[in-house]
Amino acid sequence: MAVTEQAITPAARQAARALAAAGQGAKNDALEAIAAAIERRAGEIIAENRLDVEGADGERPAIIDRLTLTDTRVAGLADAVRAVAALPDPIGTTIRELTLENGLHITKQRVPLGVILIVYEARPNVTVDAAALCVKAGNACVLRGSRLARHTNAVLLDVVREGIAEAGMPPDAVQALGEDRAELARFVADPHAADVVIPRGGEELKDFLLETSRIPVLAAAGGNCHVYVDASADPAKAVAIAVNAKTQRPGVCNAAETLLVHRDRETLLPELRAALEGAGVELREDEEAWATEFLDLKMGLRVVDSLDGALQHIATYGTGHSEAIVTEDAAAAERFTREVDAAAVYVNASTRFTDGGEYGMGAEIGISTNRLHARGPLGLEELTTTKYVVVGDGQVRE
Amino acid sequence: MAVTEQAITPAARQAARALAAAGQGAKNDALEAIAAAIERRAGEIIAENRLDVEGADGERPAIIDRLTLTDTRVAGLADAVRAVAALPDPIGTTIRELTLENGLHITKQRVPLGVILIVYEARPNVTVDAAALCVKAGNACVLRGSRLARHTNAVLLDVVREGIAEAGMPPDAVQALGEDRAELARFVADPHAADVVIPRGGEELKDFLLETSRIPVLAAAGGNCHVYVDASADPAKAVAIAVNAKTQRPGVCNAAETLLVHRDRETLLPELRAALEGAGVELREDEEAWATEFLDLKMGLRVVDSLDGALQHIATYGTGHSEAIVTEDAAAAERFTREVDAAAVYVNASTRFTDGGEYGMGAEIGISTNRLHARGPLGLEELTTTKYVVVGDGQVRE
Repeated sequence: MAVTEQAITPAARQAARALAAAGQGAKNDALEAIAAAIERRAGEIIAENRLDVEGADGERPAIIDRLTLTDTRVAGLADAVRAVAALPDPIGTTIRELTLENGLHITKQRVPLGVILIVYEARPNVTVDAAALCVKAGNACVLRGSRLARHTNAVLLDVVREGIAEAGMPPDAVQALGEDRAELARFVADPHAADVVIPRGGEELKDFLLETSRIPVLAAAGGNCHVYVDASADPAKAVAIAVNAKTQRPGVCNAAETLLVHRDRETLLPELRAALEGAGVELREDEEAWATEFLDLKMGLRVVDSLDGALQHIATYGTGHSEAIVTEDAAAAERFTREVDAAAVYVNASTRFTDGGEYGMGAEIGISTNRLHARGPLGLEELTTTKYVVVGDGQVRE
Repeated sequence: MAVTEQAITPAARQAARALAAAGQGAKNDALEAIAAAIERRAGEIIAENRLDVEGADGERPAIIDRLTLTDTRVAGLADAVRAVAALPDPIGTTIRELTLENGLHITKQRVPLGVILIVYEARPNVTVDAAALCVKAGNACVLRGSRLARHTNAVLLDVVREGIAEAGMPPDAVQALGEDRAELARFVADPHAADVVIPRGGEELKDFLLETSRIPVLAAAGGNCHVYVDASADPAKAVAIAVNAKTQRPGVCNAAETLLVHRDRETLLPELRAALEGAGVELREDEEAWATEFLDLKMGLRVVDSLDGALQHIATYGTGHSEAIVTEDAAAAERFTREVDAAAVYVNASTRFTDGGEYGMGAEIGISTNRLHARGPLGLEELTTTKYVVVGDGQVRE
């Protein structure tokens, strides 16, 4: 990219204006052109990816696996873009409508958010997914990927921009920021450089943004999630949910970190322990464990005296992400869902369901524990803002 | 208040938990108790207000008028609280609902936002209005009023807290921060001290918060609003709207600051000039005028070559608040409402309508030009966030 850092925002704002004015058809044409360009240039993408994979020698196998593109995975990138094209366009939807006594007709409509900065790790699929979601919602985006994936990201950026240009839209709708941390720090120091920053993965990077960004950050600021086994819990559900919430994918933010058990259900403890330890989980009962987000096969355990004790524990240690109660008592379920303050609250289900795909949103660009704007999985609707359109016949204010 | 600054947030969070758990009836009981306490203690309120009014000797008459409470105005404060009680409760409303194939039932519900800091000028009515709106939406609030109104605010705070306590709710749902600027600066330096700051009035104070606050600020960051008279504008509507938008209340953020006229409608210029100048407006055609938010009986004027020229002018100089087109051409109206990026876009109506009361929201706590969370008038709904409630029967993620 010949584009200098200072030129990114003005170019993005101009492209965003064009995207906001474009209809659903034009945006879907751009997405189809991106998908076709990915398929057409698959060989080139894989060749560039090989350079990154060679350069990543010595990294953990999980990182190299996420970084590596194969023919199948490149085809998957194109499929993902077409899946975004197939989603309903959130733009122009009327959220609220009323006609005043003076005859003014007011509609509150969804419009694009503007310019979105996406910061992510060495996952080349995010380059394509994030660009596709932003274009679909009429936004410009600035992508900031990992140095480990720089050859792959560069060719994917070129492919995405080529597709957008082929569809007659401004390629600056998708731009990239360099991988240098200082460059990112300078960019997010300007509150007007973008309308929002969405970090995807990378706790350290997320903390850096939450600490330093003057642009609002939409992120899961923590994932200290709980499963609370109530006095009336069904034993089989309790065991299945505790094990699933902890072990199905321990390294993610919606995995449970602490198991709370009502004193009147202590009889279930041996079975819970056996199931969790049998799945490789180390159980810890100290206060330090309750405050820790392990993201690993470790879990805090605490016996509480009452539902109130569980609510107090979650209010103290929880991070407002995903919280579950296992209970057959409707009143307890009602109090838990009402009083627990979190993005997602579960009754008799695993915390692991907090995910845009699982929630029927089609795709997600991240998860937020923010209280402002969007809380929970971030899909297309969360990449929009609103506009009041008021149509009159000469009305003036008295 | 014996409460120290550092103790405000923990006390507010604890009160917010109680309010979030309270039903509509309990919150309305608290509002009725506040209204009754205002009526019961009217004499005391007026006596304290007299101290402030005496201390404000030498201030501008408009400021003294806003500060002064009379029997009628105190009765109006109580009425305003009852009007808030009569509004529909936004909390618990289902925004989205779906049942997944696996049987999980998902609802996205409105829940309270949390802790809200309201910063305002010497308007004692804001103390009561803001507290009532926050309590109604289940939020705790921290009020930071003006030193000019300190005696009035102190007694009103005591009255409001007394009403809340009488209804069995925690009085720390409404607290106050001292009037010292340094205290405000310290408070907003902590991103966790409140969930959002809403400044009401006071450009200098708003700029200070937008510049320094680490807590998100919901505000109208500017009000450089335009009236664009299109080629096909109806003359009578054009004149009435231009005059109303500029002069009905020139000092507010939704007043128009620049009049744009299509070259093919230049014939209307003498009439527009005569009407505006007849209403005391000084018209200025220089570029500096176009960039200025006068908040006064001054107005920029520019003849543009086309609708595109008007759109470009508004994109360059506008602040995304309220923008109006006067036109009889449906296609021009459609392009204007689609392409102008603002909180509110008007066709054949005055920009002055951007107001929560006018929009049927019952009451407003401010206006926002933010793109995140809430754009336009801020009513009860804008004082909420959301929570996903997911009910299952033992579902775990595969």
